[in-house]
Amino acid sequence: MAGPPSARRGKKQSSGLGLIRDGAFAAKEGRIVWTGPTDRAGKEVSLASGAVELDAESRVVTPGFVDSHTHPVFFGTRQIEFAMRAEGADYEEIARAGGGILNSVARTREASPDELESNLLRHLWTMLRYGTTTLEAKSGYGLDADTEIRSLEVLSRVASTSAMTIVPTFMGAHEVPEEYRHEGGSDAYLGFLLSDVLPVIAERNLARFVDIFCEEGVFTVEESRRYLNAAMEAGFGVRLHADEFHDTGGALLAAELGAASADHLLSISEEGIRALAGSVTVATLLPGTAFFLAKPWPPARRLIDAGAAVALATDFNPGSCFCESMPFMVNLAVCQLGMTVEEALVSATANGAAALEMGDSKGSLQEGRDADFIIWNLDDYRSIAYHLAVPDIEAVYTSALLAVSGQCRR
Amino acid sequence: MAGPPSARRGKKQSSGLGLIRDGAFAAKEGRIVWTGPTDRAGKEVSLASGAVELDAESRVVTPGFVDSHTHPVFFGTRQIEFAMRAEGADYEEIARAGGGILNSVARTREASPDELESNLLRHLWTMLRYGTTTLEAKSGYGLDADTEIRSLEVLSRVASTSAMTIVPTFMGAHEVPEEYRHEGGSDAYLGFLLSDVLPVIAERNLARFVDIFCEEGVFTVEESRRYLNAAMEAGFGVRLHADEFHDTGGALLAAELGAASADHLLSISEEGIRALAGSVTVATLLPGTAFFLAKPWPPARRLIDAGAAVALATDFNPGSCFCESMPFMVNLAVCQLGMTVEEALVSATANGAAALEMGDSKGSLQEGRDADFIIWNLDDYRSIAYHLAVPDIEAVYTSALLAVSGQCRR
Repeated sequence: MAGPPSARRGKKQSSGLGLIRDGAFAAKEGRIVWTGPTDRAGKEVSLASGAVELDAESRVVTPGFVDSHTHPVFFGTRQIEFAMRAEGADYEEIARAGGGILNSVARTREASPDELESNLLRHLWTMLRYGTTTLEAKSGYGLDADTEIRSLEVLSRVASTSAMTIVPTFMGAHEVPEEYRHEGGSDAYLGFLLSDVLPVIAERNLARFVDIFCEEGVFTVEESRRYLNAAMEAGFGVRLHADEFHDTGGALLAAELGAASADHLLSISEEGIRALAGSVTVATLLPGTAFFLAKPWPPARRLIDAGAAVALATDFNPGSCFCESMPFMVNLAVCQLGMTVEEALVSATANGAAALEMGDSKGSLQEGRDADFIIWNLDDYRSIAYHLAVPDIEAVYTSALLAVSGQCRR
Repeated sequence: MAGPPSARRGKKQSSGLGLIRDGAFAAKEGRIVWTGPTDRAGKEVSLASGAVELDAESRVVTPGFVDSHTHPVFFGTRQIEFAMRAEGADYEEIARAGGGILNSVARTREASPDELESNLLRHLWTMLRYGTTTLEAKSGYGLDADTEIRSLEVLSRVASTSAMTIVPTFMGAHEVPEEYRHEGGSDAYLGFLLSDVLPVIAERNLARFVDIFCEEGVFTVEESRRYLNAAMEAGFGVRLHADEFHDTGGALLAAELGAASADHLLSISEEGIRALAGSVTVATLLPGTAFFLAKPWPPARRLIDAGAAVALATDFNPGSCFCESMPFMVNLAVCQLGMTVEEALVSATANGAAALEMGDSKGSLQEGRDADFIIWNLDDYRSIAYHLAVPDIEAVYTSALLAVSGQCRR
């Protein structure tokens, strides 16, 4: 499989994979320079001396997964509140027992950069084993200047030596910190982020996107609009946590701003769906979170049928989805969200790249794109979705690794 | 964790794990001979020369999973009909395209014993990697004398050298074969199984249990009663696929017969729940199948609250649940079925053993039980359920392996 045509942002969900049977590709310095049937490769590709040839005969090759929504910089796991919730504990009981996002914030603030880094590396390693080659990674468990910047510094340091491509997002606006839980506090907190934190991040180039949790009881649409407009003026791309638990109009705002992505969307209105379908904004669905919290599934079918481009991501985080597995998101999409196998694979690769404004380099195995790919121990791409919670991954390659070892064929 | 007290069949679901903090156990010839706090092990356990010591410091140790419902003897996967179903194809279209159980039957009949064995071994290996140390394995993709017996022979050959404990079940009554699809055919087919197949299986000791698919359009309660009574007279334990798509009274029949287990139960009535709660029969839930087919979840909470003993199993098979992962069943049980972490772990171990009438030897790490166990790369048992679709298994040991290498401590 050479990979789907890259998703055109804001256009109808592609349902084609651009499958090449008995196909091959060649890459140079980590970039794909040729794709086609294997029997033409001998004539059309001349291998440099020392080139590496990989044999994937009778096996499926797909682009690496693009996980366009993760929160991997934190310290401390939250299995205790997970178990309490299963026993019927409500939000307040969990908060009294020291659970909830503010628990992660407290522990992340106390963690050293080395602790944050070693925790991050462990989860990145799991993501890579499960086929993710590009991920978006948010800060957002600091909610103060020091910890937010430290989180992005850790991401930057890890990204500089990682085999994976890591796209950093500043999400200081993940929640209102305790220090600002008073009348007018949320607006004051966003003002603080804009005046004291964002300029440092811009100057030091520590993030590519800015994200905000637009939700009842967190940040309003009006607050989100002002904040994201300021972020765009400072040169950042923008994305939103939108319409997750309530329809507050977050998707409409995302479309209005031309955000790269509107994420979650469990409660999106029909108007919001139409707005996304008519916009450049990708609808990023996080079915693992719905699974983890036993919420209704995101409306994938309605979005796709309306003409929106849908991406699938893990939402990996310690509170509402402790899951790094993109193959499981594909299982969920097909078994529970009503997506076809082809739609799910495009959503987890090319459309994830589009949601990161990286459709030109990531998410498909086409000439000019990065050679990030998975060799599956499978002879039919449909089995990626069919084999439930057991990914048949034989090997994962990334362009960063291949750039070292030179040219690669098939 | 030393493992839960073994489930008492027909008694209320245990919610205790019998957790031992800083615990250890000792085994001799694959059998556990001592459990207790590690600091007492030095005084109370004397190691034989050549004994193997395993260090699981700061890690969780649990019993191996007991997967009490699988269909692993088949040939050919069914990812094509899986993908067609995702595209909205109905049962008839799938049947016309060569899908459905009869597709598996046709391919299994044609397969050689070696083909069946190599397919079986591949899936057993996956099960073992995912922590299953004991499994029930059904025939039922032959639906004729030769193929049913061949399937059980393959199981028997594999079981004789496997590190896992394999409990064979004869399920010739999995479906009505094409040759018997006429008026009175289902009854005639059961008559054939009783006269021509079951005596051979009994004589050659090829199965421990007999199972039947009691369902509208397959076998009636009355047919199932006669068939299972005959199987009990022939010395087999019995179990039922009961009340999966329709409430036909299958659970009531299971309780009436004192079956080891009634399985699926998506459509069980309140009367059926009460009957199971008052019986020796374990309620075996297969949430992976509900996930795979997007059916309602099995009523775990109602069963447990009524006092039934619940087991969790994968239902691994090529048509309705292509999943070998017991850790994922634990994820499903806690995130979607309303079970607590402790209930889910007991259901996947001790109650699975009870559903196989092996509560005295399997499913818990207690003196006298087999030393089948998992070392988890986790410091909290709750994280087994919390980490979604990513099992943190460090190593899996079985009594069959340990019996070779001698005594084991912690």
